[in-house]
Amino acid sequence: MIFPTIDYRSGAIEIIDQTLLPERERIRRLRTVAGLEEALRALRVRGAPAIGIAAGYGLLLALEEHLRGRVARPPRFFFDRTSFVTPFDDSALDARTIRKVLESARARIAATRPTAVNLFWALDRIMRAARHAGRDPFEICAGVAAEAFWIHYEELEVELAIGRNGARFVRDGMNVLTHCNAGGLAAAGYGTALGVLYAAWEKGKRFHVYVDETRPLLQGARLTAWELSKRGIPHTLLCDGAAASLFAAGRIDAAVVGADRIAANGDAANKVGTLGVALMCAAYRRPLYVAAPISTFDLSTPSGKAIPIEERPAGEVTSFAGGRCAPRGARVYNPAFDVTPARLVRAIVTERGVVVRPNARKLSALAAAPRK
Amino acid sequence: MIFPTIDYRSGAIEIIDQTLLPERERIRRLRTVAGLEEALRALRVRGAPAIGIAAGYGLLLALEEHLRGRVARPPRFFFDRTSFVTPFDDSALDARTIRKVLESARARIAATRPTAVNLFWALDRIMRAARHAGRDPFEICAGVAAEAFWIHYEELEVELAIGRNGARFVRDGMNVLTHCNAGGLAAAGYGTALGVLYAAWEKGKRFHVYVDETRPLLQGARLTAWELSKRGIPHTLLCDGAAASLFAAGRIDAAVVGADRIAANGDAANKVGTLGVALMCAAYRRPLYVAAPISTFDLSTPSGKAIPIEERPAGEVTSFAGGRCAPRGARVYNPAFDVTPARLVRAIVTERGVVVRPNARKLSALAAAPRK
Repeated sequence: MIFPTIDYRSGAIEIIDQTLLPERERIRRLRTVAGLEEALRALRVRGAPAIGIAAGYGLLLALEEHLRGRVARPPRFFFDRTSFVTPFDDSALDARTIRKVLESARARIAATRPTAVNLFWALDRIMRAARHAGRDPFEICAGVAAEAFWIHYEELEVELAIGRNGARFVRDGMNVLTHCNAGGLAAAGYGTALGVLYAAWEKGKRFHVYVDETRPLLQGARLTAWELSKRGIPHTLLCDGAAASLFAAGRIDAAVVGADRIAANGDAANKVGTLGVALMCAAYRRPLYVAAPISTFDLSTPSGKAIPIEERPAGEVTSFAGGRCAPRGARVYNPAFDVTPARLVRAIVTERGVVVRPNARKLSALAAAPRK
Repeated sequence: MIFPTIDYRSGAIEIIDQTLLPERERIRRLRTVAGLEEALRALRVRGAPAIGIAAGYGLLLALEEHLRGRVARPPRFFFDRTSFVTPFDDSALDARTIRKVLESARARIAATRPTAVNLFWALDRIMRAARHAGRDPFEICAGVAAEAFWIHYEELEVELAIGRNGARFVRDGMNVLTHCNAGGLAAAGYGTALGVLYAAWEKGKRFHVYVDETRPLLQGARLTAWELSKRGIPHTLLCDGAAASLFAAGRIDAAVVGADRIAANGDAANKVGTLGVALMCAAYRRPLYVAAPISTFDLSTPSGKAIPIEERPAGEVTSFAGGRCAPRGARVYNPAFDVTPARLVRAIVTERGVVVRPNARKLSALAAAPRK
């Protein structure tokens, strides 16, 4: 099962609105760049790979929006994910206008999540594809569409490969802890940390997942529990602070998490709370696996100390569902991520293979290797 | 400043409704044992010492409820915290009925919070006082009332003594982490873990407190932050999962927590999440102090393994402020407490003195010692 995180169909970006999960599974059609901007800002679509895919489709959508309604007789057709279906008028296709449309959309989309590195990476790829397509306006549009779809499919392949490479660490009867949502909803539909579990499940292994709710934004409770229930994988939800007692009782065999950035020495930045999970794994001698694409490797950053940590608004901690849960004016420490030192990581699972007991030498070797 | 956690006035238990804090500071009058049961289950009054005080007053309230409305002319009067004010009819005062009323109330109150050793301890004290009072029904009632008030005043003295004994561990300029609420609201009005901080503050020491929000019920965010702001002590609120990154950055010097039950070997049961804090302290070589009255010592329980852990309803995790935050039917692990092994505790601070690096021998010696 690939989750309908994001897709491009019939001239619109389709996303499952993650702010409504798990209560409502609503597919939202974004027919304008303005609609996409709102969806990115409101975290209706979130997770580094998913944001990248959305940004790529966003530039395709800008062209679609420009051409829409300019219907010639007989019509020509614009791209869709699987076929050419949107009718358009050739006269709207002049190369200079097309490039202006792309440039303006790129600036608007780039402003939505200024810290998301995948967003810039995807926008750059599309703009480069548009330049390489030459001067024929139709070729430019074709180049943008092909690159946007390619980013999506490539991400999905990466996730499937991570799953294949990591599945061997999951054994029958295991209890596995995960933190946050490194699943299909954060990515192209399959997931990284959860992709490892899905791949193991698809191989017929049977196990149970403990899901940290993951304060403050509860991605574990809202998204990971939803994904696991959709796939019929047995799971139990818990508050982040309850995990230690499960370790103490011998009820957790391994933990698997994603990563947002991995430094050259293997230190891994991930959703805040991951370091606590890592300390529990170390104290009770259980392996911690980090599953992430090579694109999260940042070999120019020597160690976790150099990874900048985004601080998020206090309101995420002091209120919930519109109600206050802390005194007015309370000072808050709300980092989005923490850094797990490489020595606490048993293995990093990527689409190119696995690095057991990561260090700088092994990471740079893997980054240079072909995909397995 | 003593917080108005609990009192007995004009024939009712008065509590500040902790479920409404920090937004509303509402005093709730409990006029029936059923009302007290509800308040204990719903955690309107919570924290080991406060539960003990409430249980003691609960048996007094059972007598009050039995006598209420049975007004003779001329009236006789039943007890209040400071004076005899409730009128009652002598004919309702037969010793057998009184004992039955007490026995039935004891069973109902005992069933509300199974892990809280103070609850049983307080109920036992009152029942013993009732037995020792002899056969005169008025004497039995007087014995129950005196013992209930005595438990309350004694607890407050205990907290002040814990504060005095623990204050030496708090140094100027320190950053101290605390978890849950072991403050005045959890106790007779001063607090145990927070009592240590208050006593240090009152001695003129200046420091900063990091407050774990403490999921699922957010006692840190709602209650500890409220207490600290009322006392003007600088503090910063954080999600439980964010504490590890503060330790890693060298920004926490010590942690101080309360305890709900301490086994003979020094293993300490406290609010779920405490074990995670203890693991962080151990990993980053920072002391963890447990501040608790001798009444939480349970020397008949050899180690933490034998401490029963109350499991709380799933709804505390799956919904928040009336809104769902997890899929319907999600399985949930929601223990109220976890057990920190004695080897992770630097010292236990009690009203009789301090046990550094606790073990069974030191604990039993302290339990037998006179108060310091």
